[in-house]
Amino acid sequence: MPEYTPLPLVLAAEQFARLPGIGMKTAQRLAYHILTIPDEDVEEFANTLVAARRAVRCCAVCQNFTEKETCAVCSDNRRDGTVICVVEAPRDVSAIERAGGFEGAYHVLHGLLSPMDGTGPEHIRIKELMTRLSGEVGEVIMATNPTVEGEATASYISRLIKPMGVKVTRLAYGLPVGASLEFADDVTLVRALENRNVI
Amino acid sequence: MPEYTPLPLVLAAEQFARLPGIGMKTAQRLAYHILTIPDEDVEEFANTLVAARRAVRCCAVCQNFTEKETCAVCSDNRRDGTVICVVEAPRDVSAIERAGGFEGAYHVLHGLLSPMDGTGPEHIRIKELMTRLSGEVGEVIMATNPTVEGEATASYISRLIKPMGVKVTRLAYGLPVGASLEFADDVTLVRALENRNVI
Repeated sequence: MPEYTPLPLVLAAEQFARLPGIGMKTAQRLAYHILTIPDEDVEEFANTLVAARRAVRCCAVCQNFTEKETCAVCSDNRRDGTVICVVEAPRDVSAIERAGGFEGAYHVLHGLLSPMDGTGPEHIRIKELMTRLSGEVGEVIMATNPTVEGEATASYISRLIKPMGVKVTRLAYGLPVGASLEFADDVTLVRALENRNVI
Repeated sequence: MPEYTPLPLVLAAEQFARLPGIGMKTAQRLAYHILTIPDEDVEEFANTLVAARRAVRCCAVCQNFTEKETCAVCSDNRRDGTVICVVEAPRDVSAIERAGGFEGAYHVLHGLLSPMDGTGPEHIRIKELMTRLSGEVGEVIMATNPTVEGEATASYISRLIKPMGVKVTRLAYGLPVGASLEFADDVTLVRALENRNVI
């Protein structure tokens, strides 16, 4: 920002720029916006974020975000605790819940294995997952993203779990519903062919 | 967000979604991010925004954002106070300062005339501009955006100022530097032809 910009405005822009997906240009626009709205609104914004950070912790069972000791899914006895869907982050639980149709429980890893970034098994919630695999659990669905890290994590965890006699499954690869063959990437198309189903 | 989402997280996402240009999807992503960073970082973010809103006010002369009674441009005696560049918002001052080359003073309107939104002359800082037009000021540059509202505001203000014998100018219309004729819109191309210069 130009030298005449007031320092508090520069600092506010820098804070916004630390958020993921917010570039310096957007951050500056947001900082300017903050100065044009009433004091009370800025305080409400600030207080809501701090309150959210303080109120929300990880569920003692599944590690998803919750306000309580145990999250709403884990405390809901209509959910099937014998199927555990393993995801990278709380936003993935959100996505699956929004889609509907899954009645089991979750486990949030809070990260993926990534040797490049120095993230090893001890940095994500694998230990917590292992302690849940009592006699009750019949299936663990690896629902990490279809990326290199997601694949590596799914395969690492499945190697840990299989010897315990628990079934481990992986989300299906294939064409996104509504997509065109024409625009599908090669790897997806090969997987869709390999995993073809009888109709 | 799905029903299992903790309320503080929903509230945080709603706050983010109130920011300009931030949709609900991005807002949710940002709210989730807030919960993954240390408490102190969230507090620093919140405090910086509240502090910026409290510390920054409008310059008594040009209405641009400043921490002091008078802004850095208005208090700088190397700047030419006889030329006033009128802009819609503080971010426009930032853009012109960043570009460099302008040595005069500014006047920030904090809005544009917009009958559709009920914004009349009394809602933007026109009165404050008029009180600055003493004998000293020789030129007022209307640097509002080249939009319907920007044009209307420039033309309204120039009609007020001209009778006072002050020269009023408007930013040049033409091709953006580095653009292709091929992709220029018709109105811009017509203006670029009309305003052609001898080389």
